[in-house]
Amino acid sequence: MAELLTFDIGGTKIASAFVRLPEEGDAPVVLLRDEIPTRAAEGGDAVRERLMEFAYQQLQLAGEHGIVPRGIGIAAAGVPDSKTGEIISATDLLPGWKGQQIYQALHQVTVLPVYMVGDVVAHGLGEAQYGAGRTSRIMLSIGVGTGIGGAIIIDGQPFFGAHGMAGHAGHVASPLGVGVLCSCGTTQGHIEPVASGTGLATLYNIRTDGSQVHNGGEVAALANDGDETAISVIKDSAHALGVCIGGMANLIDPDGIVVSGSVTKAGADWWSALRIGYRESALPLLRDVQLREGELGGDAPLIGAAVAASQTIN
Amino acid sequence: MAELLTFDIGGTKIASAFVRLPEEGDAPVVLLRDEIPTRAAEGGDAVRERLMEFAYQQLQLAGEHGIVPRGIGIAAAGVPDSKTGEIISATDLLPGWKGQQIYQALHQVTVLPVYMVGDVVAHGLGEAQYGAGRTSRIMLSIGVGTGIGGAIIIDGQPFFGAHGMAGHAGHVASPLGVGVLCSCGTTQGHIEPVASGTGLATLYNIRTDGSQVHNGGEVAALANDGDETAISVIKDSAHALGVCIGGMANLIDPDGIVVSGSVTKAGADWWSALRIGYRESALPLLRDVQLREGELGGDAPLIGAAVAASQTIN
Repeated sequence: MAELLTFDIGGTKIASAFVRLPEEGDAPVVLLRDEIPTRAAEGGDAVRERLMEFAYQQLQLAGEHGIVPRGIGIAAAGVPDSKTGEIISATDLLPGWKGQQIYQALHQVTVLPVYMVGDVVAHGLGEAQYGAGRTSRIMLSIGVGTGIGGAIIIDGQPFFGAHGMAGHAGHVASPLGVGVLCSCGTTQGHIEPVASGTGLATLYNIRTDGSQVHNGGEVAALANDGDETAISVIKDSAHALGVCIGGMANLIDPDGIVVSGSVTKAGADWWSALRIGYRESALPLLRDVQLREGELGGDAPLIGAAVAASQTIN
Repeated sequence: MAELLTFDIGGTKIASAFVRLPEEGDAPVVLLRDEIPTRAAEGGDAVRERLMEFAYQQLQLAGEHGIVPRGIGIAAAGVPDSKTGEIISATDLLPGWKGQQIYQALHQVTVLPVYMVGDVVAHGLGEAQYGAGRTSRIMLSIGVGTGIGGAIIIDGQPFFGAHGMAGHAGHVASPLGVGVLCSCGTTQGHIEPVASGTGLATLYNIRTDGSQVHNGGEVAALANDGDETAISVIKDSAHALGVCIGGMANLIDPDGIVVSGSVTKAGADWWSALRIGYRESALPLLRDVQLREGELGGDAPLIGAAVAASQTIN
């Protein structure tokens, strides 16, 4: 029942909090939440050092507040190796992040045990344990923000796959994505480049033949103002994502699907099209699995990092 | 080390054999293989009674050959509930199959313990244990025949999902399938109706605007004779399937992928296009996972049924 110190390392900011995980049924408590800019452009070494300083500060703060954390849980961007603490893969959003040894670094600051999972896995784990997936045994978590990520949570444990790569839900085939360059390099048609926040803007710019909308928020605002193209972009994009999620459900057969991230705030049209697409693609026995909105918001990765750490640290 | 009596119940025939599972490294022994027509059109009750008679005959035969089976393993078409022995879902290929109580029926014939899994799961389990997937920890099995099915095998155990539905790899999104009616009823674009054997014929008939080719074998024969349309159909279909398998790998992160079924005999062009499509869609860390051809052929479901039964029956 003691607190865990948690970090959520993203491309823009590093968030931290002390998380107290209650018995089942109660909500977790998030204490002393703070965040600093990642300054990713300064490179992976600088980010690692900033994380060490931040950890040092937070541990001092803990002392002042009488908090005695029993371990550290980390939700990290990229693909971390939970066993060794190495970042084994990262995108261009975090140059030099790949190869960083996070456990080694933090052990220079503290003797506390450390456990790290991917931020998308942490997000899913948080929702599975304390959020919209808490009644599910097999949960598919889909995060729709700047990109599209995902996680598969089975009996409260993340399913990592053979290379720690499981859950990359943005990189499945989609008709709408054909010819649009995905962040992974393919143009064969992945869902991410047309259904992420960035993807909404891409689709809008393609359809208006020269607009320079920059993100999903701008498309959503245009749709709110009655812009017909923006409305169709939001509906088509959400529908295509729903069809993909139906296919993913046919493959892994979840009893809970949680969809989170900034794009899920695009409005009722987005959710309606998403659910219609899902039902059109899911097999009969899976058609009634609910697509729920994430409940934990920005705290989900911190809470999930605490869950992961508490499962691992004795 | 005693034998298991196994059945593979399909839409056309019911196969049976006694299977002896050796220690790791050796090949399983398949004894007294036999088969009878399913006569599916006569309805599920008739198929169930034919299975009971077949089991009775096989057990008599066992006595004559001095075989003392320690249990029965069944690979069944449709979606069986392994706990109760009920068929919980079946396609139109087996009318009245849904709802059949298989354990109850066989317990009228014998006191031997019975365990049943889906035929596609059994196939994957056989390949995972003794075939092309025997070096993999997480195996994705794809069967490409009249339809497209699949199974996920984790640490030698089938992953059933929340409703026993996991592995339905034919019902994932594919650009090539848009507008083509899938066996599940969708026209949103699933891979099965354009990449199964039936799908090859469908694509060929669409592209020649009126041909009446009936199955993948005919398309493959035409391609062998130099028919340009048939060649393009085989390449496009295999490529689209490869792109889908890449997406599935991105989601579940296997370290082994086994592709089996009649369509895999379509030739080198088919395999080449499949592997190109896969590599174009799989994320960098997954691009080098091999797509292997199944090694056990028609015995795979019988061997897999024996594996499943041996894991469950004490």
